[in-house]
Amino acid sequence: MTAPAPPRVRHAWYVLAWSHEVRREPIVRTLYGDPIVVYRGRSGQIGAFLDRCPHRGVPLSEGSVAGDHLQCAYHGWEFDPTGQCVAIPSFLGDPAKAGRCATRFAVRERQGVIWVWATRDEEPPVEPYDFEYADRPGYTVIRRDVRAAATVHAVAENALDVPHTAFLHGGLFRRADVRNPITAEVRRWHNRVEAEYIGEPRPTGLVARLLSPSGGLVTHFDRFFLPSVVQVEYRIGDENHFVITAACTPADDYDTRLYALAALKSRIPGFLLRLLQPFGLRIFRQDAAILALQTENTRHFGEEVYASTEVDLLGPHILKLLHRAERGEVGAPRAEPWARTVQMEA
Amino acid sequence: MTAPAPPRVRHAWYVLAWSHEVRREPIVRTLYGDPIVVYRGRSGQIGAFLDRCPHRGVPLSEGSVAGDHLQCAYHGWEFDPTGQCVAIPSFLGDPAKAGRCATRFAVRERQGVIWVWATRDEEPPVEPYDFEYADRPGYTVIRRDVRAAATVHAVAENALDVPHTAFLHGGLFRRADVRNPITAEVRRWHNRVEAEYIGEPRPTGLVARLLSPSGGLVTHFDRFFLPSVVQVEYRIGDENHFVITAACTPADDYDTRLYALAALKSRIPGFLLRLLQPFGLRIFRQDAAILALQTENTRHFGEEVYASTEVDLLGPHILKLLHRAERGEVGAPRAEPWARTVQMEA
Amino acid sequence: MTAPAPPRVRHAWYVLAWSHEVRREPIVRTLYGDPIVVYRGRSGQIGAFLDRCPHRGVPLSEGSVAGDHLQCAYHGWEFDPTGQCVAIPSFLGDPAKAGRCATRFAVRERQGVIWVWATRDEEPPVEPYDFEYADRPGYTVIRRDVRAAATVHAVAENALDVPHTAFLHGGLFRRADVRNPITAEVRRWHNRVEAEYIGEPRPTGLVARLLSPSGGLVTHFDRFFLPSVVQVEYRIGDENHFVITAACTPADDYDTRLYALAALKSRIPGFLLRLLQPFGLRIFRQDAAILALQTENTRHFGEEVYASTEVDLLGPHILKLLHRAERGEVGAPRAEPWARTVQMEA
Repeated sequence: MTAPAPPRVRHAWYVLAWSHEVRREPIVRTLYGDPIVVYRGRSGQIGAFLDRCPHRGVPLSEGSVAGDHLQCAYHGWEFDPTGQCVAIPSFLGDPAKAGRCATRFAVRERQGVIWVWATRDEEPPVEPYDFEYADRPGYTVIRRDVRAAATVHAVAENALDVPHTAFLHGGLFRRADVRNPITAEVRRWHNRVEAEYIGEPRPTGLVARLLSPSGGLVTHFDRFFLPSVVQVEYRIGDENHFVITAACTPADDYDTRLYALAALKSRIPGFLLRLLQPFGLRIFRQDAAILALQTENTRHFGEEVYASTEVDLLGPHILKLLHRAERGEVGAPRAEPWARTVQMEA
Repeated sequence: MTAPAPPRVRHAWYVLAWSHEVRREPIVRTLYGDPIVVYRGRSGQIGAFLDRCPHRGVPLSEGSVAGDHLQCAYHGWEFDPTGQCVAIPSFLGDPAKAGRCATRFAVRERQGVIWVWATRDEEPPVEPYDFEYADRPGYTVIRRDVRAAATVHAVAENALDVPHTAFLHGGLFRRADVRNPITAEVRRWHNRVEAEYIGEPRPTGLVARLLSPSGGLVTHFDRFFLPSVVQVEYRIGDENHFVITAACTPADDYDTRLYALAALKSRIPGFLLRLLQPFGLRIFRQDAAILALQTENTRHFGEEVYASTEVDLLGPHILKLLHRAERGEVGAPRAEPWARTVQMEA
Repeated sequence: MTAPAPPRVRHAWYVLAWSHEVRREPIVRTLYGDPIVVYRGRSGQIGAFLDRCPHRGVPLSEGSVAGDHLQCAYHGWEFDPTGQCVAIPSFLGDPAKAGRCATRFAVRERQGVIWVWATRDEEPPVEPYDFEYADRPGYTVIRRDVRAAATVHAVAENALDVPHTAFLHGGLFRRADVRNPITAEVRRWHNRVEAEYIGEPRPTGLVARLLSPSGGLVTHFDRFFLPSVVQVEYRIGDENHFVITAACTPADDYDTRLYALAALKSRIPGFLLRLLQPFGLRIFRQDAAILALQTENTRHFGEEVYASTEVDLLGPHILKLLHRAERGEVGAPRAEPWARTVQMEA
């Protein structure tokens, strides 16, 4: 069967790479399945083109960087960072002509991240998402990218879902046999949705005990920002603040790459916090494995039919936002969000 | 090319596993391409569901058995053997609701075999096929399952076909250069077809000489029962009786699993009869190899166009029965079968 | 995506094998994706059939040659070199009947090459291409077949293209930094197109220096003959003459096999000329690699959209000839070709 096409939000920025990955050698990344070649010219300027030479269709990523230009490996056609053809070997005429341009994507380099606008040959009306904790003093910042064989929606729902943690990550994070009643407040704006958890006790698992030996009040938010940023924020007591923000990139409909920044403030020193990375990656690997199985079934059955309950707090809202954004119906900002309170166990 | 869809008989029982294969760990089998999870609860009761959790679509076979329930590995939803959802962790409401049921298949466990009814959520009006020699005193019974990359029809025709044995299995069974005139009587009822071979001499190959050193009259029947049971019965002299019955399961349209029971009565002791297994498996491997090539060509050319002669005794009748059964036109039992006599060489 | 179907010229001869490859064991080759079995009977006669037995569809190439017949491995049906069914084991009737014929292709064996007419069961109105230098006295002839994962058109354009040599084969053949103005005359007839290069200096690369140490006037033609023959002819000085002719076979739409004859006359002795083979193969491997990447992009994007300039001398003409031939519009021979002069650098 063919898997159904999930919502595609094309008028949006996505992270294609970390800054340090884009050097003089062109690299290829995919966005919604299409290969995009990204290179950095001698002046530092970055070009991002569809990875197909307009001449005979071979991948431009096979070519090489000459000054600020990218030169195709087959016949040597050269393109400047805007995609303009500037040289055609053997040809005595003028190389510039509309049909000879490389298909270009708008690029931004900010906070150590390369963003690309997902619509070809279009000038973006907005700027990319700002990672507010990227350079905050007093915070240890860890950057990491990971991949999951699932849609942006499935990945985002999973990242922000509480109930599965006791089962899939049983013992690492929450425990299935210790249940506490909590209240969740869900609030949805035109371009984002969040859940705030009230009355949540300090988690009882191993990771939680390492982070906050002295216990204390827990503040916990899960957030989604269109088109694809997920954020989990925890305050445990006065002294611990953890904000993990990940920009999800649809490398393909069922292949999502997450560029994550974890900002951590704690009495525990930064070098010890870094030791927690293996726990985080182990949790992510468990999630990635179950998400890949979810995708396999979606492909096999050719459909996604989901039964939800009210404790699926954010997933249905994320899907609604994505579908609206795909149709261009994001609408005007609203001061008062849609809101709902849910009683649940965690 | 896409291979054409062979007839699919959905209102029917198929073997999914041997009894001993279904323990507390859920197992997955496929039927017409769909994964089915089968598990045995603590009480011994067996559940068979489409291998997809109604909540987020992940395979239930990744979960675990809790008492008589199957619990999903992702969010811990629990289902009883009828497919009813009986627990949703974190959720304070009532879990039971139509849209939250697992898709269930009717199950029977008989004669050491697990049968499943091929239509979802349907109560079968009939019971599965009875292996009449499964427990017959005086018979050595050997059970074995094998697989062939071909349709149920191609597998059944091959299993019951005489002319190919001299070529494909030349030397093992019959010999191409020794020909005898025989008469075949073909009889077709509403739900089965058989060929009786009259005047067949004792086969001359190695296997035959081992089985019946003293020679004698041969009685030989080849039979097909809807939807997918094949049977070869030989009597050689007074003292040898061999009945091989195999239930064919369409794991997929072009992937057939055979659950075979060979019942043997002979002056040769049972432990010696068991030594014949390698010969049988070698013959089956030759058949499986040629059937896989037949399937490859069907896939490549996107069609099955077969030229038959009257010595293709059963294949065309089996196909007719399968097509009728697919359309639900099995009709009323008839006392007098359609019959035909064919002169041939074997 | 699905790659677009390139033009298919079916009323045409293609090389399927070298003569020495067709012995008593049947071999399989593909033409436009279909498997064709080719065998040589005891009398030397060659049969070429679609590789599918009309009885149950298994590949005839699994069978064996008996006298002048090909016998299927499954039930032993036998076919003569015209495809007529001449024996059916077990069957007492007459085997000959229209529906029981193997699907046959016309065959010619000439100049050490096996040609097959690409339309089934059709008697060809013309004879295959004549390799005029195959047996020319004074010439060293080297035969070689290679494969490229690309269309006949892409392979032929690449084989006859000058501008890419300085880039893709930089250093081996031409150098990108040494440029000479030359004039190219393009001439197109109803069934072929050629480019003659005027004023071309002796190539400056390593291969050229080995071939013609004393320099001299260069005559250079690149030619394409429908449906798929490419030819590169060089005269360097009075004493060197090189003609490489390759018949391209569309094993599949994007899988082209080239059967090449290189005819070389030079003051350099033949055994030394043969030492040049590795250079030629290295050039071909570079071409095959870039052509495979071109094909990958065509498959990915589901289209071929090419921007050409006038220095793409032959490619657009070859495509026009192939499209006309596919539609059967080859037309009458014309004495005066369509012609055009192009100024370029090489």
